[in-house]
Amino acid sequence: MNFADRLFEAQRKKDSFAVLGVDPQLDGAEPGLPPGYTLERFCCEIVEACAPSIVAVKPQLAFFEARGIEGMRAFASVVKLARSLEVLTIADAKRGDIGTTSAAYAAAFLGDGDFACDAVTINPYLGSDAIMPFLRAVPHGRGIFVLVKTSNPTAGEFQDLMTEHGQLWECVARRIHGIGSDFIGGCGFSAIGAVVGATYPRAAQRARKIMPNTVILVPGYGVQGAGASQAVAALTGEGTGAIVSASRSIMYAYRNAPQQSPPLAAAAAAEAMRVELNSAAALQRAPTAT
Amino acid sequence: MNFADRLFEAQRKKDSFAVLGVDPQLDGAEPGLPPGYTLERFCCEIVEACAPSIVAVKPQLAFFEARGIEGMRAFASVVKLARSLEVLTIADAKRGDIGTTSAAYAAAFLGDGDFACDAVTINPYLGSDAIMPFLRAVPHGRGIFVLVKTSNPTAGEFQDLMTEHGQLWECVARRIHGIGSDFIGGCGFSAIGAVVGATYPRAAQRARKIMPNTVILVPGYGVQGAGASQAVAALTGEGTGAIVSASRSIMYAYRNAPQQSPPLAAAAAAEAMRVELNSAAALQRAPTAT
Repeated sequence: MNFADRLFEAQRKKDSFAVLGVDPQLDGAEPGLPPGYTLERFCCEIVEACAPSIVAVKPQLAFFEARGIEGMRAFASVVKLARSLEVLTIADAKRGDIGTTSAAYAAAFLGDGDFACDAVTINPYLGSDAIMPFLRAVPHGRGIFVLVKTSNPTAGEFQDLMTEHGQLWECVARRIHGIGSDFIGGCGFSAIGAVVGATYPRAAQRARKIMPNTVILVPGYGVQGAGASQAVAALTGEGTGAIVSASRSIMYAYRNAPQQSPPLAAAAAAEAMRVELNSAAALQRAPTAT
Repeated sequence: MNFADRLFEAQRKKDSFAVLGVDPQLDGAEPGLPPGYTLERFCCEIVEACAPSIVAVKPQLAFFEARGIEGMRAFASVVKLARSLEVLTIADAKRGDIGTTSAAYAAAFLGDGDFACDAVTINPYLGSDAIMPFLRAVPHGRGIFVLVKTSNPTAGEFQDLMTEHGQLWECVARRIHGIGSDFIGGCGFSAIGAVVGATYPRAAQRARKIMPNTVILVPGYGVQGAGASQAVAALTGEGTGAIVSASRSIMYAYRNAPQQSPPLAAAAAAEAMRVELNSAAALQRAPTAT
C-alpha cells in the first residue's frame, strides 16, 4: 500500500492532521525529563497517551543521538511502540548522502532493523543522488519527506536565493514534484512528501501550487510560533495533503499543568491540537463553499 | 587548542594528508564484512592498522545506523579506539537542523558522550542556524566541516545553480569563510572547515580562493574516481589546508590481496595513499618553486 494512502487512511480514521514530534530536550533551564522518568519511559508514555489524536509520531534523532547508546535504544523502543499502536512513524533524521551511503541510510530508517520507520526526512543539498536510494522502499509502503522550506529564522539564507529558475527552494520543490509523480497512490498523493515550515504560510501556498500531489509535512506548530491557520495553509482546496507536527508544546504540556501527569497533560494537548487544526482547516475551506 | 592546530600538528607528526573513511559497506555483490569478522572487530582492526599513516578517521554514520544498536555500539568503539591511538575523529554525519535540535546534534558528536568526536560534517541547507550551535564546541578544540561542493554526480543539481551572488556552493563557501574567520588558530586556518569533492578539482581551486583560511576535507579519493593530483587541488600554495579521505579502497584492499589479512592489506593501502598524496602535493608545489 502506497505510503500516502496509508497516511490518508490514518487521517480518516483519526480525523486528524496532527503529528507528535518526539523531541526529548536536553537539560537546559528546565530538565529535559520529568523527575523520576527515564528517557524511554517518558517518550513511550507520551506516545501511548497521544496515540488516539495523532496520525504519526516524528521522533527527532538528534535528541536520541545526544544520549548515546541509551538514547538509540529509547528511539528503537518508541518506534516499536508506535507500530504496535498502529501509529505511523516518521524518523526526523534529515539525512542526505550519496550512493551506497544514502542506501545505508535508507536501510537504517526504511529497512527492517532497530531504527526502521514508515518514513524519513531527507536533506536535498546533495541533489537527486541523496533521494534515489530511498525510492526503492516505496513499493514496501514507505515514504520520504524532503526538506523544501524550513521553519527557522535563517531558512532563507540559502533556500531563498534567487536562481535563474526561481528561488532555490522552488527549484527543490519542482524536482520533488517531478520525482514524486512516479509514486502517486490511490488518494492522488505521492509517497514522496515535502517539509515546508508553518512559519512561512505564503511559501506553503506557493509550495502547494508547485507540488499539487505532494503531502506536505508542516513543522513549527506551537513553540516555534505558528498558529493553526498558518499551519494548514499548505492544504489543498479539498482540505487534504498536509500533516502538521508539534513537539515541545505537547511533550512538555505538564509544565503548565502541574496537577496532571506528563502523559495526561500531553494527551490533552494533542487532542486540543487535533481539534484546533480541524477547525482551522474547516475555516480555510469555508470561503470557497459560500 | 584550536582544532585546525590539532590537525596541523597531526599532519606534521605523521607527514600525511590521509584520512581513513570508516565505511563498513552493507552486503551487496560481496559481503560487507570479511568472513569471520564482527562489525566492531573489522572496523577496529582496520583503524589500528592504518593509524601510523593517517591523521584522522572519518566514520560514516550511515553504515553504523543501518546496523541498529549493534552498529552504534561499534561506532562508539571505533571512536574510543581512535582516541586512544591519538588519531583524530571526524563523524561523517552530515547533520543539519535548527535551534535546540542542532544543539542536540552538537552534544551528540562534539560533546562527551558515546558518539563524541573531534569534528563532525554538517549540511548547510538550513542556513547559519544549522551551524551556530556547533561553534560553542570550538573553544574545546572541536571542529566542523560544512558541505560546500560534494563529489557525487548530481552534486551540481542544486549546488551549481546560478544565483545573483554566484553559484549556490560559492554562496555557501563565502558564508563559511565569514563564520570561520572568528575561529582561526595559530596555524592560520580555522576550526570551521569545508567539504569539497575531489571529483571537481576546478571547484576545489575556486573554493580555496573564496576560503583562504579554511581546511578543506576532500572526499572521493580512490573508489569514487579521483586521483591524487585531483585530490590535492585544494591545497594552498604552501601545500597546506587540506586533508583527503578514502574509504573503500583502504577498508576493502584485502579483496585484491587475498594473501593478506584485512588489516594488513588496509595498512599497506593507507601507507600507499599517504605516499601518493605527498608526491602529488610536492608535484603541485614544484612549478611555483622553479
